[in-house]
Amino acid sequence: MFHHIKELQYNAKPTKPDPVYAKKLQEVLGGQYGEITVMMQYLFQGWNCRGDQKYRDMLLDIGTEEIAHVEMLANMIAQLLDGAPAKEQDAAAQDPVIESVLGGMNPQHMIVSGLGAKPDDSAGYPWNARYTIGSGNLLADFRANLNAESQGRLQVVRLYESTTDPGVRDMLSFLIARDTMHQNQWMAAIEELEQTQKALVPSTFPQENEKQEVSYSFMNFSKGEESAQGRWANGPSYDGQGTFEYVATPEAMGQVPILNPAPAYIHGTPVNGSIPPDTGTSAFDKS
Amino acid sequence: MFHHIKELQYNAKPTKPDPVYAKKLQEVLGGQYGEITVMMQYLFQGWNCRGDQKYRDMLLDIGTEEIAHVEMLANMIAQLLDGAPAKEQDAAAQDPVIESVLGGMNPQHMIVSGLGAKPDDSAGYPWNARYTIGSGNLLADFRANLNAESQGRLQVVRLYESTTDPGVRDMLSFLIARDTMHQNQWMAAIEELEQTQKALVPSTFPQENEKQEVSYSFMNFSKGEESAQGRWANGPSYDGQGTFEYVATPEAMGQVPILNPAPAYIHGTPVNGSIPPDTGTSAFDKS
Amino acid sequence: MFHHIKELQYNAKPTKPDPVYAKKLQEVLGGQYGEITVMMQYLFQGWNCRGDQKYRDMLLDIGTEEIAHVEMLANMIAQLLDGAPAKEQDAAAQDPVIESVLGGMNPQHMIVSGLGAKPDDSAGYPWNARYTIGSGNLLADFRANLNAESQGRLQVVRLYESTTDPGVRDMLSFLIARDTMHQNQWMAAIEELEQTQKALVPSTFPQENEKQEVSYSFMNFSKGEESAQGRWANGPSYDGQGTFEYVATPEAMGQVPILNPAPAYIHGTPVNGSIPPDTGTSAFDKS
Amino acid sequence: MFHHIKELQYNAKPTKPDPVYAKKLQEVLGGQYGEITVMMQYLFQGWNCRGDQKYRDMLLDIGTEEIAHVEMLANMIAQLLDGAPAKEQDAAAQDPVIESVLGGMNPQHMIVSGLGAKPDDSAGYPWNARYTIGSGNLLADFRANLNAESQGRLQVVRLYESTTDPGVRDMLSFLIARDTMHQNQWMAAIEELEQTQKALVPSTFPQENEKQEVSYSFMNFSKGEESAQGRWANGPSYDGQGTFEYVATPEAMGQVPILNPAPAYIHGTPVNGSIPPDTGTSAFDKS
Amino acid sequence: MFHHIKELQYNAKPTKPDPVYAKKLQEVLGGQYGEITVMMQYLFQGWNCRGDQKYRDMLLDIGTEEIAHVEMLANMIAQLLDGAPAKEQDAAAQDPVIESVLGGMNPQHMIVSGLGAKPDDSAGYPWNARYTIGSGNLLADFRANLNAESQGRLQVVRLYESTTDPGVRDMLSFLIARDTMHQNQWMAAIEELEQTQKALVPSTFPQENEKQEVSYSFMNFSKGEESAQGRWANGPSYDGQGTFEYVATPEAMGQVPILNPAPAYIHGTPVNGSIPPDTGTSAFDKS
Amino acid sequence: MFHHIKELQYNAKPTKPDPVYAKKLQEVLGGQYGEITVMMQYLFQGWNCRGDQKYRDMLLDIGTEEIAHVEMLANMIAQLLDGAPAKEQDAAAQDPVIESVLGGMNPQHMIVSGLGAKPDDSAGYPWNARYTIGSGNLLADFRANLNAESQGRLQVVRLYESTTDPGVRDMLSFLIARDTMHQNQWMAAIEELEQTQKALVPSTFPQENEKQEVSYSFMNFSKGEESAQGRWANGPSYDGQGTFEYVATPEAMGQVPILNPAPAYIHGTPVNGSIPPDTGTSAFDKS
Repeated sequence: MFHHIKELQYNAKPTKPDPVYAKKLQEVLGGQYGEITVMMQYLFQGWNCRGDQKYRDMLLDIGTEEIAHVEMLANMIAQLLDGAPAKEQDAAAQDPVIESVLGGMNPQHMIVSGLGAKPDDSAGYPWNARYTIGSGNLLADFRANLNAESQGRLQVVRLYESTTDPGVRDMLSFLIARDTMHQNQWMAAIEELEQTQKALVPSTFPQENEKQEVSYSFMNFSKGEESAQGRWANGPSYDGQGTFEYVATPEAMGQVPILNPAPAYIHGTPVNGSIPPDTGTSAFDKS
Repeated sequence: MFHHIKELQYNAKPTKPDPVYAKKLQEVLGGQYGEITVMMQYLFQGWNCRGDQKYRDMLLDIGTEEIAHVEMLANMIAQLLDGAPAKEQDAAAQDPVIESVLGGMNPQHMIVSGLGAKPDDSAGYPWNARYTIGSGNLLADFRANLNAESQGRLQVVRLYESTTDPGVRDMLSFLIARDTMHQNQWMAAIEELEQTQKALVPSTFPQENEKQEVSYSFMNFSKGEESAQGRWANGPSYDGQGTFEYVATPEAMGQVPILNPAPAYIHGTPVNGSIPPDTGTSAFDKS
Repeated sequence: MFHHIKELQYNAKPTKPDPVYAKKLQEVLGGQYGEITVMMQYLFQGWNCRGDQKYRDMLLDIGTEEIAHVEMLANMIAQLLDGAPAKEQDAAAQDPVIESVLGGMNPQHMIVSGLGAKPDDSAGYPWNARYTIGSGNLLADFRANLNAESQGRLQVVRLYESTTDPGVRDMLSFLIARDTMHQNQWMAAIEELEQTQKALVPSTFPQENEKQEVSYSFMNFSKGEESAQGRWANGPSYDGQGTFEYVATPEAMGQVPILNPAPAYIHGTPVNGSIPPDTGTSAFDKS
Repeated sequence: MFHHIKELQYNAKPTKPDPVYAKKLQEVLGGQYGEITVMMQYLFQGWNCRGDQKYRDMLLDIGTEEIAHVEMLANMIAQLLDGAPAKEQDAAAQDPVIESVLGGMNPQHMIVSGLGAKPDDSAGYPWNARYTIGSGNLLADFRANLNAESQGRLQVVRLYESTTDPGVRDMLSFLIARDTMHQNQWMAAIEELEQTQKALVPSTFPQENEKQEVSYSFMNFSKGEESAQGRWANGPSYDGQGTFEYVATPEAMGQVPILNPAPAYIHGTPVNGSIPPDTGTSAFDKS
Repeated sequence: MFHHIKELQYNAKPTKPDPVYAKKLQEVLGGQYGEITVMMQYLFQGWNCRGDQKYRDMLLDIGTEEIAHVEMLANMIAQLLDGAPAKEQDAAAQDPVIESVLGGMNPQHMIVSGLGAKPDDSAGYPWNARYTIGSGNLLADFRANLNAESQGRLQVVRLYESTTDPGVRDMLSFLIARDTMHQNQWMAAIEELEQTQKALVPSTFPQENEKQEVSYSFMNFSKGEESAQGRWANGPSYDGQGTFEYVATPEAMGQVPILNPAPAYIHGTPVNGSIPPDTGTSAFDKS
Repeated sequence: MFHHIKELQYNAKPTKPDPVYAKKLQEVLGGQYGEITVMMQYLFQGWNCRGDQKYRDMLLDIGTEEIAHVEMLANMIAQLLDGAPAKEQDAAAQDPVIESVLGGMNPQHMIVSGLGAKPDDSAGYPWNARYTIGSGNLLADFRANLNAESQGRLQVVRLYESTTDPGVRDMLSFLIARDTMHQNQWMAAIEELEQTQKALVPSTFPQENEKQEVSYSFMNFSKGEESAQGRWANGPSYDGQGTFEYVATPEAMGQVPILNPAPAYIHGTPVNGSIPPDTGTSAFDKS
C-alpha cells in the first residue's frame, strides 16, 4: 500500500515557461529510459520478487522513489507549458520567433492535455510496458536496471546542457545525482549477486548441456581484424570458466535448409508448376 | 555491405513438428530480447559508432552473427510448423489432443504466414524498434548489451527445458553457448571502457554540477529496513567517488506544487466557480 | 450495408493552405478522441448490440454520421496541404518563415501521403483500435461515448481558437455543434438506462458479493484533508444504496506478501545462496 | 513524494495455483481499463490539476490507492502462476488436461517473467499510455474516470464469475466494492462540477460560435426509424439550452469535394494523361 | 456523406456457436489485411484523390462496400461467440473439451467485449492505421490494393477450409468471390494507368537523375547462382527501358565509413582515451 | 550465415550536416516502406520459402542487399547530424534560423541516439514487424514486394527533390536506380508465376466454392456513375474466367441481423427492462 506526501521530493520550479523545452523533457518522463520506465520496472520486480526479502524491500524503496521523480517531472512540464502560445497562424507568420515555438512544440500539449504533462516521450510516442523487464532472475534484472540508469543519466545530462534555466537545471542536478546513486547501487547489488552465484546468467544451467566448443570464441564475420584487439578476444573469460579465442574465419556448421512443401490447405506456391491436390485435410490428419 | 552463405551457422533440424512449441520459440526470435533485437541493436550501434574502429568492427561482427541466429530460428520454426493441423472444429472437438494443439498454436502461423516464422514474440506481438538502443555512449550501450544477452540466455534456457526434441535442444545448446560468449564479451568490453573512463555514465559530466549531497544516499521509502542490509547501503561507492549512506527516513526537499490557472483558450476547469473571460488570445501574446 | 453520397455533410473549404495547421487538425481526425475513434466505437457497439433495436439503430445512425465527419476532415486536411513547401534547405535557411513551416509540418504529409490526410494524430502516431470500447453493457458504453464527445468537443474548440481561417472555422463550428448534440444525446440515453436499471455498472451483480464495508468509503491516502470537502466524502451515495464516509487514515487490511521460491526450471535467483537442484521437471509434475 | 507500506491494502491469496486464470486476470491489471490505467490517469490528472486544491488532493488520493490495487493484482498473479507446468510436449500430448493448461497459458509468464505478473493485458498486449487522458478540463476527465470505473467493474465482475477459488473471489470482492465507491465518487464529482459550470464540455465556448441549427438535431442516417423512440429524439436537451428534434432524412449541406492537382514534386497521378512539368519547385514557392 | 441500410450485404449466420473459430475469424476483420484495412485504405485514397473523378468515385464505391464487409464479419463473430463458456476452472479441468475451448478462445471476447467482435486480429493485436497507405500516386496505391486483396483472399480461403459450418462457409464464399472481383479490378485499373503513364513508379522522375548503370542489374549477394535462372536476370526489363543483367560478384562501390567524434555536449565515448573538453557549446555554434 | 564487407555498397557522404533533413530521411530507413521493411520482408520470405530454390536464393540475394541499404542510410543520417545544435533556448530565441532547426529536428536524435540514426520513421514512430508480410504464397508476396518498391521509390524521389546537397542526391540516385531494378524484378517474377499458375491468388481454391454470381461485378455504392467508365466495369476479367459487369444499384442480399441476448454472466444490458437471472453458469453449460 502507498501514501502520498504533498511536498515534492525536490524542487521543480522553472524560472520561466519554455514549451519547446517541455517537449524535449518528456523524453525522461515517458521515454524508453524515462522515469515511468524505472518506476514500473522496479515496482514489478519488487512485487514479483521470490528472493531474499532485502531485495524485495530495496526494489520497492527505489520504485517508490521513482514515482516521486515522475511527479517532479510532470509538475515541471506543466509549468514550462504555462506560456504556450495559441496565437493564430497569420500573426505568427509575421513573427518567426513565435512561429518557431509553435513548430517546435508538441501540439498535443495544447490540444490534448491542455498544458499538462503527458506520459509520452519527446517524439510524442506513448509509454508502453515493453520498455520494462522483470524476469524472476535478479542478476539479469539488475543488469537491466544498471543499463536503464546509465541511459537515463546520459539523457538527463544532455537535457541539462540544452537549457540555461536555473530552476530547470536545479531539478535536473538532483535527478542526475540520484542516477549517480542508482548506477552505484545496481553495481553494488550486481557484485553481491555475482559472489553468491556465478557471473553467467542463469548460473544454474549445467554448462555441459551447451555447445561448449563455441562458448568462448569471438567470431570475426567481417573483412579486417580490428576486432581482434579487444579484451574480448584474448585472455581468460569473465566467468572464470574458459579462455577467449579469436576465430578469424568462422565456418558454417549447419545444413543448407530445404523446407517441405506446404500441405494443400495452405495454398502456397505450387512447386515446379505442380499444384498439390486440394484434399481439404492436413498433414497432421495423416499421422 | 553483406554477403549471404547458404549454410546455416549451426544445425536447425527438429526431430518432428510441434506447432505449439513453434509459438513459444517465437519469443527468442521476435521478442523483446530475441535475436532480432540484438541483431538490430548491434548493427545500429556499429553503424553509429564514433569511437575507436575496433569497437565498430566488433559491433558489426557480432551484429552480423546475430542475423545468422535469426535465420536459424526462422528455419527451425518453419519446420516445427510442418504438421500444423487444419482439421475442422467438429472432428477436433472429439479429439482433445488435436483441439488443444489448435488452441495452443498461434493462429497467425496458419492464417497469415502459411506455416512460416513471423517477426513476432510468443504472444503474437510484433517486434518493434523501441526494443533497441544505441546512445552514442559505448559504456552505456554495452551495459544494454550485457542485459540483453543475460535476459536472452535465460529465456533460451527456459525454452531448452520445455522440450525434449533432440534436434531443437541441439540448436538451442548452440545459441546458449553463444550467449555465454556474448555475456563474457560484453563484460570484457565494459571493463576495458571503465578503465579508460570512469564507471559512471557519462563520465564526462562535471560532478560538481550534480546535487552531490544525495549522490550516494540510499533512501528508505518503505516501512521496515531490510534494505539496509545490502552492499548498496554501506561502504565505498562503486565509482570510487563517495561512500554509501542509508537514509532511514528521507524528507521531502521540494515545494508543494501549485499550478497557475490555464489561459482562457485552454477551456480548463473554472477555478472557484469563476470562469476566466474568453479573450481569444493567450498568455504568450501578452508578453 | 452502406451507401455513399457525393456531397459532404457540411462545407469543408479552407480559405487558404496552411500545412502547419493541417498537422494539428490531424488530432481530431485520427487521435485518441478523433472522429475515427467515435466512428469505429459507435459502429462496433451497434453491430454487437444485443439490447433493444432502438439502441442498435441509434448507434448505427450516429456511427454512420461519424464516417461523414472523417470524410470532411480528410478533405479539409488535403486542401490545407495544397501549399506545402518542397523548397530545399539552403534557400529556406535564408527565409525563416518558410523554414519554420517546414519544421512545423508533419514530414509524412509530404513524403508518405503526398499532400493527403493520414489516419494519424497530431504527433504522427497512427490510430489504433485500443482507443475504442464496446463492452456489451450499454450503460458502460454510453459513459464511454459521453467521455469521447466531451474530450472531442474540447479539442475541436481548442483548434477553432488556434486559427482565424473563416473556412476552417465554419467547418469546425459545425463539428462543435454536432458534438453539442452528441453530448446531450448520450446524457439522455444514460438517464434512460439508469431508470430501467441501476446507476451502478453492472447493475446485475449481487452487491452482497462485494466487500460492502468499503463500498462507500473515500480513503485519504495523502497528508492533508482537502479531499474531505467534496460531495464524494459526505451524504448519500449516487446509486442510492449507501452513505459516503471519509476515512482519514485508512489502514492496510492485507498480508505482507511472501512468494514461494520459483521451481528450478525457471532459473530464478537462488534464495539465501542455495541453488535448488536442476531436476528438469516442474512443481506441476509432482502434483 | 510517496511512501510504501509493506502490507497489501487487502488480502491477495489464492487457494491454489491456476496459470490459465492468471492469464485472464492480467486484463484488469494491464488492460485498457485495468488498474495501471486508472493509477496513471488519476496521478497525471492530479499532477496537472490547475483547479481547486481539493480536486488535486482527491485525484492524488485515489491515484495513490490505485497503485495499491496494481500491487495486489501483481502479487495475486505471481501466486496463481506458482504451479505453471514446464512439462515437455511429449508427455503432455498424452495428458490433455496438462496440454490444455499449456495451451491456455500466456507463454511469456514462463519464458519472459519467470512466473511473475506482467504489465500486459489478457491477450499479452502491453499497457500503453494512450489508454489515459488528462485534458485540463476536470468535467471532461471525470467523465473519462466514470467510464473507466464502469468498464473496470464490469470486467472484474466477469472475472469473479469465471472462478470458484475463494481466495481470488475474496480479493475481487474488495476490488468490486472499491469500484462501486469510485463510480459513485465520480458521479458525485461530476454533479458538483455541473453545478458550478454547465453540463456541456467545455462550458466556456460561446455557443453563438457553433452552427446552432444542428446543435440539438438527431439525424437518422439509416433506413427505419427505431431510433426516434429514444429520449435523445424528443424533449428538452440535457444542457437546458435547446430541444431535441428528430431529422428523419438529413440532407447533405456541403460541397462535392474536388481537390487541386498535386504539384510536380509530389509525383502524383497525372490527371487526364497529362504529366505536369517537373519544375523542382513547389506551389508554395510561387506565393 | 453516408447512409446505412439495415440489411447486411450478404447473409452472416453461423449454424452454431464456435468461440475458438471466432478468435481466428478476427484476422480477416481486424488484421493486417483484414476488411478494416481495405475499408480505411480505399476511403482515404478516395478522399485524398487528386486524379480523375472516376478514380475517386471508384475508390469510394469499393471503400463503402468494405464497410459492409466489416459489418458482416462483426455480426458473424458476435453470433459465433453466443456459446462462449464461462465455466469455472475446476469443472473444466475435468472436461478437456471445455477446457480446450477456454484455452483456445481470446479471453477478451468474454472479459472485454462481452461476446462481441473486436477491431483486433486473431492474435488479439489491435488494428492500427500503419496497415494502410494512400500516397497520392494511384499506380503505387493500386499495387498496394492488389496486394491487400491477394493476401486477404488467401487468408479467407484458409479460414474457409478450417471450418465445416455451412453458414460460415456461405458467408466466406461471398467474401472470396468479392475478393476475386477486387483482385481483377485492381489488375484492370493498374493496366489502365500503366498505359497512360509508364510502369515505373513514379513515372515522372527523370531517369537520367538516377544512377543508371545499376538500374537493371540483378546482384547476386550469396554463394550459389540459382537466382540466375529467373526472368529477372535475363531479357528486356519490364519498363521497356533496359535489359536485365546478372552480376555474379557485385563489388562494393562506396567508402569505408568513418564518423567524426561527437561534440562534447553529447557525452559519447572518449576516443583513444582522450575526453574532449566539456565546453557547453556545440559544433553548430562555431559555424 | 552472413559476412560483412567494410565498404558501403555505394557512397554515403553528405556535403554538409543538415539535422532537419536527417529527420526526414528516417522515413526511408525505418518507415512503413523504408529499407528495414524490405530487408526484413525479403529475408523472412526467403527463410520461409517452400517453393523452388531459385526463389529462395533470389529472395535472400535481394534481402542481403537491403541490409546494405539500411547501412548506407544509417551512416548518411549520422553524418547529417554532425552539426546538430545544442544551443540553449535563450540565444536561439534571438536567432530564428537556429531555433527553427531545433524545432524541425527530431529531439531524440540528440537526447536518445547521440547524433546517430534510429530505426524509426520521419515522425519518430518506431519500425514494427507488422509492416512486413510473408504468406507462403509467392505470387501474393511478390505483389507485396512490388508495392513496397513502388511506394519506396516514390518516397525516395520526393526526398531527392527536397534537398540540393550533391552528396545526398548522389546516394539517393543510387537507391532510386536500385528501386527501378527491384520494381522491374518483381514485375518479372510476378509474370513468371502467373504463367505457371493463374493470376488469381490463391489459384488453387476451387472457384465453384465461391459465390460466383458476384465474382466479376463492380458494385456502385454511391450516387453518380463516374466509376462505370473504367476498365474494371467492362470487358473480360483479368483472370480470363469471367466478364466484368457494372451493377448500378446493388441490392442487399443478407438478413437484418438480430443477436441473441447475452447470458447472465456477461452482465450486458437488460433487454426491455428485464434482467436475466444471475445463474452463475453459461449457455455453454446447458448444452
